[in-house]
Amino acid sequence: MNTTVADTAALPMATRRRLLIAAMSLFNQYGFAGTSLQMIADELGLTKAAIYYHFRTRDQLLMALMDPVQREIGSVVDAAEAQRGARARAEAMLAGYASVVARNRALTAVTTFDPSVRGVLRNHPLWNALIDRQLALLGATQQGTQATLYATMVLTGMAGAASTAPADLDDDALCRQLIDAGRRTLDLRGPTPKR
Amino acid sequence: MNTTVADTAALPMATRRRLLIAAMSLFNQYGFAGTSLQMIADELGLTKAAIYYHFRTRDQLLMALMDPVQREIGSVVDAAEAQRGARARAEAMLAGYASVVARNRALTAVTTFDPSVRGVLRNHPLWNALIDRQLALLGATQQGTQATLYATMVLTGMAGAASTAPADLDDDALCRQLIDAGRRTLDLRGPTPKR
Repeated sequence: MNTTVADTAALPMATRRRLLIAAMSLFNQYGFAGTSLQMIADELGLTKAAIYYHFRTRDQLLMALMDPVQREIGSVVDAAEAQRGARARAEAMLAGYASVVARNRALTAVTTFDPSVRGVLRNHPLWNALIDRQLALLGATQQGTQATLYATMVLTGMAGAASTAPADLDDDALCRQLIDAGRRTLDLRGPTPKR
Repeated sequence: MNTTVADTAALPMATRRRLLIAAMSLFNQYGFAGTSLQMIADELGLTKAAIYYHFRTRDQLLMALMDPVQREIGSVVDAAEAQRGARARAEAMLAGYASVVARNRALTAVTTFDPSVRGVLRNHPLWNALIDRQLALLGATQQGTQATLYATMVLTGMAGAASTAPADLDDDALCRQLIDAGRRTLDLRGPTPKR
């Protein structure tokens, strides 16, 4: 009996999960703007009504994909801001971001680079604030107007490298390489803080 | 008479140019996949037939936008490959790429990041070969499997930084900052080659 109840309860969740996975793959292939709910339904052999049961709009689906990553980035930013010193804050942000993008490569490509996704995210004040806080943390050890440029280079560069990394490069190895490259860009190498 | 002829001849070209500019702006806003020829026509107050006179498909329009940049990147790659030594090749590629993206910020965002654009470009062997040659040049001074990761980080990072740079940062200043950041990432600083 218990098993039957659990199975029945699990079914809608399994569909929701399959939906999100199919959507992410189509977003990566055709762009967010180029993917209709109908295409997602077709991909899974579902009716559009079955999709509507879970998500009323494509934007809702996108935000459901983004939600766990947004919360994770939020925790990384909070923890990094709690560090003492600009260098420790930049290091913490760098390591946390590298870990998130290494473990979420497909989603990273969609959220960082797709113009139509950026259009949706732009309307979410929390997401915009998070990006500004990430840039401030990563640029903390840099001087002047170049700080934001270096920080943007690290965020977009790490996202680009993660989302095109070979599938056989495991998450930990990728994460280490991203941190190494980011530390170079931000001039964070060496044991002694330079600034 | 000459003036009239010239004016008449210039008209279609002016429309073509306006078309390309409007298309690039819409691609940046809604993504390539999210922009229809109808939207471009509406933006300019033209009929769809007027668009068709210049471009039969959206892909054709994209390739017309890409064409000058592709040729410019091709020249940069050729010149970089002609340099002696891995470091000189990486430096030449870096400086050339920085200059191209600093002067083509809006197009850089579209061509580097839009998944639906990458879908179109993937079908162009020349463009794919150019990307591989850029990555090989930028990674030339790096050891082992990380070479491509560093090179990708530089290409996507510079594109991301250029496409979001403040409008009041002039092309030359942006170019210098991009080169500086790229040299850090690739460990090209200092007068003596390290490898």
